[in-house]
Amino acid sequence: MPFEIAATDSNSQARAGLLHTAHGSVPTPAYMPVATKGAVKTVSVPELEQMGANAIIANALHLYLRPGALNLQRAGGLHKFMLWNRTIFTDSGGFQIIRKKLNIKKNDDGLIFKDFFNGSIKHYTPELCMEMQHAIGSDVAMLLDDCPPFDAVPSKVKEALQQTLLWSKRGIQRGRELGLPQIFAIVQGGTDAALRRYCTEELEKLNPDGYGIGGLSIGEPKEVMIQTLTDTNHILPKEKVRYLMGVGSVKEMLDAISLGVDFFDSTFPTQCARHGTIFTSQGRLNMKGLKLEKEDRPLDENCDCETCKKYSRSYINHLLRESEMLGMRLTSIHNLSYVLGVIRKARAHILEGTFIQFKKSIQEGDITPS
Amino acid sequence: MPFEIAATDSNSQARAGLLHTAHGSVPTPAYMPVATKGAVKTVSVPELEQMGANAIIANALHLYLRPGALNLQRAGGLHKFMLWNRTIFTDSGGFQIIRKKLNIKKNDDGLIFKDFFNGSIKHYTPELCMEMQHAIGSDVAMLLDDCPPFDAVPSKVKEALQQTLLWSKRGIQRGRELGLPQIFAIVQGGTDAALRRYCTEELEKLNPDGYGIGGLSIGEPKEVMIQTLTDTNHILPKEKVRYLMGVGSVKEMLDAISLGVDFFDSTFPTQCARHGTIFTSQGRLNMKGLKLEKEDRPLDENCDCETCKKYSRSYINHLLRESEMLGMRLTSIHNLSYVLGVIRKARAHILEGTFIQFKKSIQEGDITPS
Repeated sequence: MPFEIAATDSNSQARAGLLHTAHGSVPTPAYMPVATKGAVKTVSVPELEQMGANAIIANALHLYLRPGALNLQRAGGLHKFMLWNRTIFTDSGGFQIIRKKLNIKKNDDGLIFKDFFNGSIKHYTPELCMEMQHAIGSDVAMLLDDCPPFDAVPSKVKEALQQTLLWSKRGIQRGRELGLPQIFAIVQGGTDAALRRYCTEELEKLNPDGYGIGGLSIGEPKEVMIQTLTDTNHILPKEKVRYLMGVGSVKEMLDAISLGVDFFDSTFPTQCARHGTIFTSQGRLNMKGLKLEKEDRPLDENCDCETCKKYSRSYINHLLRESEMLGMRLTSIHNLSYVLGVIRKARAHILEGTFIQFKKSIQEGDITPS
Repeated sequence: MPFEIAATDSNSQARAGLLHTAHGSVPTPAYMPVATKGAVKTVSVPELEQMGANAIIANALHLYLRPGALNLQRAGGLHKFMLWNRTIFTDSGGFQIIRKKLNIKKNDDGLIFKDFFNGSIKHYTPELCMEMQHAIGSDVAMLLDDCPPFDAVPSKVKEALQQTLLWSKRGIQRGRELGLPQIFAIVQGGTDAALRRYCTEELEKLNPDGYGIGGLSIGEPKEVMIQTLTDTNHILPKEKVRYLMGVGSVKEMLDAISLGVDFFDSTFPTQCARHGTIFTSQGRLNMKGLKLEKEDRPLDENCDCETCKKYSRSYINHLLRESEMLGMRLTSIHNLSYVLGVIRKARAHILEGTFIQFKKSIQEGDITPS
């Protein structure tokens, strides 16, 4: 079995596991930095390795447009193209439907949209989506899903669910033919418990290797997200990976871990970093709003990342104010290291049976330096 | 003596030397990457060390505005602020006069301008300029100069020359009081040989530790630059450093070395890099205009920089097209490594007496990949 569960927390649904792929074993729970187009914004692969990232996630739809399947295949796949030798997940591109500016149309045959670059019309079928992930050399591929916006009317949520089921059926068949090592189905159904149950039960019939939990953290209130996640995890088979898509705030990840989630991805840590919002053990520090010229200490005194080992708040603050890319790189390295570190510690605490205490100790409020 | 000349080429005026500072000895000829605001755009200090940069140049006027003298002093100077332990040159800020959008006024008392950030009026005197370079902890400070545009009428060139002489007199007095380790005067005089001679002779009376050659490479034809440089170097004392300011094209640097120049700085290699113009041993490769998707080879097959050791043209081309900052970092590392490498080789050839042959072998035309 590619997924092993090493321990389950007795006070919550949290579990510590290992996902085995051809590019190493990923200890879970795991947070994946996002390399949509084959690079995690501002940071290099050696920097990702240094901070202990074991898996990243790229986007099949973006890579389909550029550099395209042929170029990726010729390069020997995304691992060789970007020089990342650890695990690669790939998202299918279904999530892009909710980005209104992309103006993506859909029908039973998949997505129809204008190529962002040359204006040509693209037909992105559930099968093509798997062929693309095959060209990428993805370790864990996602089936094409139809993600409705959080405020969609019930009829639209149902329609998207049916579309997801149809596309998943077509996609997994093609994916198995191609021999993709692991294929995850994405659960949709909005915030309706009955629809989530129905979707999960139907997807189970396809026997995917794991499950993405889609359609959450897209604008709905946090309580609604937690309730939907609780409902969904309750139904998902325990022995398979559960990957909550698009969640990257530490508090939300810890809540989701306590409900039995294994994987996360989100651009939130790097987006915050580029805009000067720093995650620390004391809470969130918004560098742009503060006078940090006199602060010789690191971003987080309890952090041993490459940024905090060397650089002062005053220098990083200066770089961000001057729009120097080095500043965004240093804050991205820190925020990613911080998130990876919290999730790594969460796993250790699950193994030790102290996860709930650890979860309570994590601060995420805004702080002002003294 | 802080500057030693180790060898002089018998077929040209080229010389190989060593400039000793409290932060190491810089083999000359030397190219300095530009860290205007305390960071070389897109690259880190360990990356600069790795590529063999021995000196960088920052700008006193920019650092005066942000982070300011007090903050730099409190941080222990620019070396500690940015974590660079090798030599730092600082430009005075006189060059900024020709940037029309800054709208800098001048009088005998220095520069008057609006703070770019808060709109307050700043009086930047020749003395304050040296105090700022003292706060920075500069190893080699420049006296405040008045740089006229290349198309200035003769009366304006003379006026700027007189201003430069007056400011230099005031600046060096303050600089010596402060104990700045090395102070260079900047030769102006436009493209008029007599004015350059007069300026040099007057500056010599101040006994500066070396000379910046200013007011060149700002729009004048290349032949005019070479002629003016020939005239100027002819007069400058042989035993002191000659630093040609703002020149960073490899061909122009090699021409200037053959005329006896020791130091260079320019943002040209990093600006080109960010825009996809790559310096290679075969000539210049403009990545933006080319189809490089199928090129697995490095940017330059004869280069051993960190970028060329690992990354393919196709991946870098993809990153630049997607505006990923990592792409600009990788091309900046390459272009800087390339320029530093050529200048390092030029020095070795001066020592071996083969500089002229080496100079002829360097290609700088545009190339298209086969």
